[in-house]
Amino acid sequence: MGNDNTDIPVTVIGLGLMGRALAGAFLKAGHPTTVWNRTTSKADHLVAEGARPAPTAGDALKAGSLTIICLTDYEAVREVLDACELDGTTLINLTSGSSAQAREAARWAERRGARYLDGAIMAVPPAIGTAEAVILHSGPRPDFAAHEPTLGALGTVTYLGEDPGLASLYDVAGLAMMWSVLNAWLQGTALLGTAGVDAAAYAPFAQQIATVVAGWLPGYAEQIDRGSFPAEVSALETDAGAMAHLIEESEAADVNTELPKLIKAMAERSIAAGHGAEQYPVLIDEFRNPRGA
Amino acid sequence: MGNDNTDIPVTVIGLGLMGRALAGAFLKAGHPTTVWNRTTSKADHLVAEGARPAPTAGDALKAGSLTIICLTDYEAVREVLDACELDGTTLINLTSGSSAQAREAARWAERRGARYLDGAIMAVPPAIGTAEAVILHSGPRPDFAAHEPTLGALGTVTYLGEDPGLASLYDVAGLAMMWSVLNAWLQGTALLGTAGVDAAAYAPFAQQIATVVAGWLPGYAEQIDRGSFPAEVSALETDAGAMAHLIEESEAADVNTELPKLIKAMAERSIAAGHGAEQYPVLIDEFRNPRGA
Repeated sequence: MGNDNTDIPVTVIGLGLMGRALAGAFLKAGHPTTVWNRTTSKADHLVAEGARPAPTAGDALKAGSLTIICLTDYEAVREVLDACELDGTTLINLTSGSSAQAREAARWAERRGARYLDGAIMAVPPAIGTAEAVILHSGPRPDFAAHEPTLGALGTVTYLGEDPGLASLYDVAGLAMMWSVLNAWLQGTALLGTAGVDAAAYAPFAQQIATVVAGWLPGYAEQIDRGSFPAEVSALETDAGAMAHLIEESEAADVNTELPKLIKAMAERSIAAGHGAEQYPVLIDEFRNPRGA
Repeated sequence: MGNDNTDIPVTVIGLGLMGRALAGAFLKAGHPTTVWNRTTSKADHLVAEGARPAPTAGDALKAGSLTIICLTDYEAVREVLDACELDGTTLINLTSGSSAQAREAARWAERRGARYLDGAIMAVPPAIGTAEAVILHSGPRPDFAAHEPTLGALGTVTYLGEDPGLASLYDVAGLAMMWSVLNAWLQGTALLGTAGVDAAAYAPFAQQIATVVAGWLPGYAEQIDRGSFPAEVSALETDAGAMAHLIEESEAADVNTELPKLIKAMAERSIAAGHGAEQYPVLIDEFRNPRGA
């Protein structure tokens, strides 16, 4: 991920485990890297590797054309930046938080004269600096475009759109997918375990199904965007019969049935609403409905 | 999927939508194909294509060295085969049913002198005869091995193990994965939809996450088989914090929260049981536990 922008000075504010990984990746890519943390000792190792410690957050902001912020929460971001001169700076806030906090921070930064992008890191600290680290960004496109080559030192950088809340939303949506794949696999592993099947024997099968079904999503998305759900492959009513089998098998094997029952309950509500002859993605109405159960 | 076994005569009993697709695939592969159905008119189209109609189920069984059964349910299988001579026949029962029904049918067939394999079709009728149609088999390995080339005319045939209940169990476990990937994608689609993101814009991201996470399963399976869950990547306690964000974002966007809340509830129970510092697959204990909620 080396590029010809490596002489661009950058600043990292917040040197927890993730902040140190971010600063370390910039240093490794050759960027002059200024760092600041409330507890200064957190910077020691980075300084030994060539980072420049700033005495104050304000000094740190002045050192680089681009400042990455990675603090505990958005409250900490305000506390640290409140007394600083922000006019003309570019802030990329990778602090974990909600989409509402991101939008509020964007408005606040704009009032202070700063350019602001919000981001979400879909990676653990050891992955930072490798292509495996996916880092999502949202906010003004020109500001992202201006700094994309520099941000590339941190991992695979992605731009989602102008709404600064998008990075947080994609982040939690992606995590919902992660936990759901893991939970479905655990359900199957528990069920097959009662028949003496090792987790290792079942895992490649589960992997294959998840990968195949993931490949259907772009096509199914077209049904949602059109708002039309013809049963080209299977009708929800037929699926519901198989859901009953999943519950019965789970009960017979004496394993947990909460996930199977939730799957069936949501499908049954959609069928009760008259969608039994339509295709699975018609369930989007249930997921959009906050008054589910 | 042509092979040099295409002169082997086969029989298909039960000519619903799926049974007709199975018989059609055998005919297309060149197998002499005998068919039987209670309502004989269902055979008309197949007969026009070269299938031989048998006057009774017993006659149909005698015509082939291999009989595929695809009826409404296991009760129908008993009703149809009860009066037939089964000694020396090989039955492959692709009728939908539970693992318990499959095991019972295997014992019953064995007492009647038949070789018996149970199967599950993970495909819709139009896919039969193509590699996309995955057909799972379980029962005596030599009987599967003897007929594997013939069965190959139907799709991608897989052997799971001696326990005749395995095909049904893998089937519902695979369906649980399918619905879970779809539901997680719908949750994300609903959430991002409130920020004006089209389903089509989000789908490739969801696909990528599902595919990446599916790739972790074989490694995570080793933790389950060892019964040891060191937090190499992330601790369950950290995950639970992000689960709270998912619920908060879903509530703020006014979309359904049932799936996010189930994800968090199961993690919280595992943390309460002392597993907060361990890695996600430690949740297998919750999925094995029938007294969850």
